Order: sequence, then C-alpha cells, then structure tokens
Amino acid sequence: MRTSTLTIVGVGLIGGSIGLAAKRRRVAERVIGVGREQADLERALKLGLIDEITCDLQRGIAQAAIVVFCTPVNLIAEQIIRTAPACGRDAVITDTGSTKAQIIHAVEERLPDGVLFVGSHPLAGSEKSGPEHADADLFQDRIVVVTPSQRTAPEATARVSEFWRKLGARIEYMAPEAHDEAMSWTSHLPHLLASALANSLPPELSRFAASGFRDTTRVASGDPRLWAPILMQNRTSLLSALEGIDRQLSRFRSGLTTSSSDLLHDLLAQAKKVRDDLAS
Amino acid sequence: MRTSTLTIVGVGLIGGSIGLAAKRRRVAERVIGVGREQADLERALKLGLIDEITCDLQRGIAQAAIVVFCTPVNLIAEQIIRTAPACGRDAVITDTGSTKAQIIHAVEERLPDGVLFVGSHPLAGSEKSGPEHADADLFQDRIVVVTPSQRTAPEATARVSEFWRKLGARIEYMAPEAHDEAMSWTSHLPHLLASALANSLPPELSRFAASGFRDTTRVASGDPRLWAPILMQNRTSLLSALEGIDRQLSRFRSGLTTSSSDLLHDLLAQAKKVRDDLAS
Repeated sequence: MRTSTLTIVGVGLIGGSIGLAAKRRRVAERVIGVGREQADLERALKLGLIDEITCDLQRGIAQAAIVVFCTPVNLIAEQIIRTAPACGRDAVITDTGSTKAQIIHAVEERLPDGVLFVGSHPLAGSEKSGPEHADADLFQDRIVVVTPSQRTAPEATARVSEFWRKLGARIEYMAPEAHDEAMSWTSHLPHLLASALANSLPPELSRFAASGFRDTTRVASGDPRLWAPILMQNRTSLLSALEGIDRQLSRFRSGLTTSSSDLLHDLLAQAKKVRDDLAS
Repeated sequence: MRTSTLTIVGVGLIGGSIGLAAKRRRVAERVIGVGREQADLERALKLGLIDEITCDLQRGIAQAAIVVFCTPVNLIAEQIIRTAPACGRDAVITDTGSTKAQIIHAVEERLPDGVLFVGSHPLAGSEKSGPEHADADLFQDRIVVVTPSQRTAPEATARVSEFWRKLGARIEYMAPEAHDEAMSWTSHLPHLLASALANSLPPELSRFAASGFRDTTRVASGDPRLWAPILMQNRTSLLSALEGIDRQLSRFRSGLTTSSSDLLHDLLAQAKKVRDDLAS
C-alpha cells in the first residue's frame, strides 16, 4: 500500500517519464503531478503521464507515499523544507537533482523529525526537455545514484532504491560529495566544454558545422535555467575538472607546437580507447 | 564519355561511399578501387562498392577519366605526384583530404604540365571507418568544399564540381588556406576537445558516463592514424582555435569563481542559441 500514491513535483522530461513508467509498471495506483503552471500540468495529464494535477504543493503531497521532486536544483531544497510538514507520516521524499551535496545539506539542516528523505539522481535524460519527450523506459537499465548521508534513515534509502528498481533502474550508492565530484567529470565538464565550443564558433562558419561539431556540442542545447544552477552548485569540483582538461589540452598543444606526430597519435589513440570502451 | 572510368584510391568509408554512389547514380560505367591490401579491396568488391580492384596504383589510374584519392592526408600529395605521369591526357585528379593547403602546395610544386588537379573535401563521414559503413547517400545534400588555388585550371574545378554534384552534393568554393582555417573551428578543434575530454575521464568513473559524455566524446573514436596527420597539417590554424577555446573557458571559469549565476546563464544561453540554430 505504501506506494499507492506517487506525487511528482515538476512534470518535465524526467518527472513525466517517472509518472509514465510508474503507471505502466503499476508502481503506483495514482500519480499526482504538481507544478506552477496549470497549462503545463494539463499537457502532461493529456499525455497520460499523470492521473491528477494541482498547483498546490501542500495539497499535492498530503496523501503521497512517495514524493519525487524533479524541479531545478536551485529550487529543490527550499520546496522540500517548505512542504515536508504537510507530508503523511509514512511518506518518503526524494529528488532527481543533478547535484546533491548542497541540496542534501540544506534539507537536512531543516527537515522536521520523522520525515524520511534521501537524494537520488537518475543518469538519464537528454538535451531535450518537457513532458512531450517523456519515455516510460527512460530509466530501464540506467544507473540511478542514491546518495544517503550520515544522517539519512536506512528506511528512506531502502524505499527510494526499491522505487527506482521498479522503474527498471540499477542503483549505485554514493556519498553526496562523491556524487558531485564524479558528475563534474562525466556530465558537468562535458556540458561546459560543449557550450564553450558552441560559443567559439565564428558565426559565418556555422554552415560548415557537420556531424562532428553537432555531436560534440549537442548537450549545449540543454536549458540554461536548469544548467546554470547545476554548474553553480558544483563549482568547486567543476573548477578542479577544468584544471584537468587544461592539462589535457596542454598535451595536445605541446604536440602541435613541437610538430610531434607521435605524441598526437598517442593522445588520440588513448582517447579512442577510452571512448570505444564506453558502449555506443 | 569523360567519366566512364572512375578510379578511387583508398576504399574506406569515404572512398567506398563514392564508389557506391557513383554506381547507383550511373556517374561512372566502371569503378576501379586501388589499395595496398588485397583483402581490403576484396571486401569492398564483395560489398559491391567497386567493380574492379588492383594494388598497382599506376595501372589503376591509367584509364581513368577521374581519379579520387581518399587516402590519409599525409600520403595524398606523394601518391598524386608519383602517379600523375601515368594518367591519361583527359584525366582529372582530386582528393578528399580534411586538410587542403599543405597537400595542394606540395602537389602543385611538382605536378607535370597538363595534368588536371583540384582539391576537394566532402563534409561528410563519421567516427566510423571502413568500407562496411559505406553509404550511397553519404554526400546527398552535404557540402563538398572544392578548393582551387591560383594555379588551378578552371576545367579541373568545373569537372570535379560536376562530379560531386552528380553524387548529390552542394559545392562551396574556398581557397585552400581559408578551408583549413574554417575546418580548424568546425572539425579539428571539436576532435581535439572530444579527445582531451575522453583522456581526462578518471577510469573508475567510466560507468557513470551517460549520453551527454558519450555525445560530447563521440568523434574521439575516429582513427588516430587518420586524425594525427590532419591535426598536424593544420597545426597553425588549430593553435589559434585553441586560443579561442581558452578564452571561452576563461569566461566560464570566471562565472564559477565569482559565483555569478547571471554570467553562467548568459554563456549557456548563448551556446544554446548557437547549437539550436544548427539543424539537429
């Protein structure tokens, strides 16, 4: 009975996919979508991603067994703290933010006693956004990182992990800080580099940008309102990752300035091996 | 009758696609594939990309109306110079190298009188290589940059342009140096960045590399034996492009160190606009 009502706060690509997956897989009997814009919620309702809608956060979560916040990372902590007192006694709260440490510490400082919370982050999504791109299989065989802190109740971790598993995901556990450092390399640095590359393109050359340029810059199409707060919340790790990429770029620069074909070949061969070892 | 025999030197992804497209579109009555490895040529023959094969470069080009060199950029100039004397009187030679200035200047210094040559570069291809990935529509609606120099015979430019048009391509004319500078931004810098990013990934984090990392590093799977010479031949322009990306990275670094959400948002919004303006 525990997962009979699922409330999703923020019904975009991720939130909408959670709703659709939960309905298809009968993980919840009832899915409530909460958002700020009535029109957006009605689109998600029409798409069949959720069963009921409300713009009233408190009312939306009152009956939920599980509440998932899928809002931008700069809003999550405040929304959780504000609404936690309205949660039922056996509710568990999680979020899907791409950064974890800042959110989790802010929540834990002010979470009422007895409210179950643990952070999570599904490594799924795309440069697209909006409920129209929701996909019931978005989490199938994908990693969801669940990030218990030292203050997290084991029951919260267990129930949130079980929820994601039912949506098809594989669970990895990491401390919030370790998560953020990992993401600075695998997600936030690529986003920053892709954006810097897009910004460096002389406008008159855009018609020559073929598939290589398009692939390399694809993630730069992500929504800046979501990504600026992500980069900001993870700025310490990201600045370290930037030093890492600077070191790598220096090796290439050195190969070019000294006309060392061998060095360039070795750097490219190393990169090819790394990339080929990742499936597609 | 002029294009009755087409000879392709180097039957990989690009050469194989030229052969297949020329046969399907009846641009040539007979397509000869030339290569170093008999076994590779036999694969291409079996795939129906070419009609005849030979490892003897001189013999392969003797009867050709048009010869296309699709070999690595560090081999093209020498191969053209060595074989040009064996070409028929009405033959025209081109190549598909991703760099142009160095090749064209080397060829022009030593090309026998009366041999027609102009460089070209189809902006098509992928991180894949080999004749198995040949595609008869690889050039359809793609740009082929044709790069006449001041010494190029107009007839060479006209005939090579016509050849590419028959394969479905759109022609853009650029001086060899202008081509190389453009490609440093649209193709060679992205390749270098993707490779540097792949090399910066801590190995223990590779399982967290999701679609964003994979897209951003996709081109790093390209063959280092093809790409090291490309980066090397275009090193002057590429070093300038690296300065450009450094400037862009500094702007992001500044946004992060000063915790300026507005600056980060503006940089990401600018990048999104650039990327969204390129079709898919």
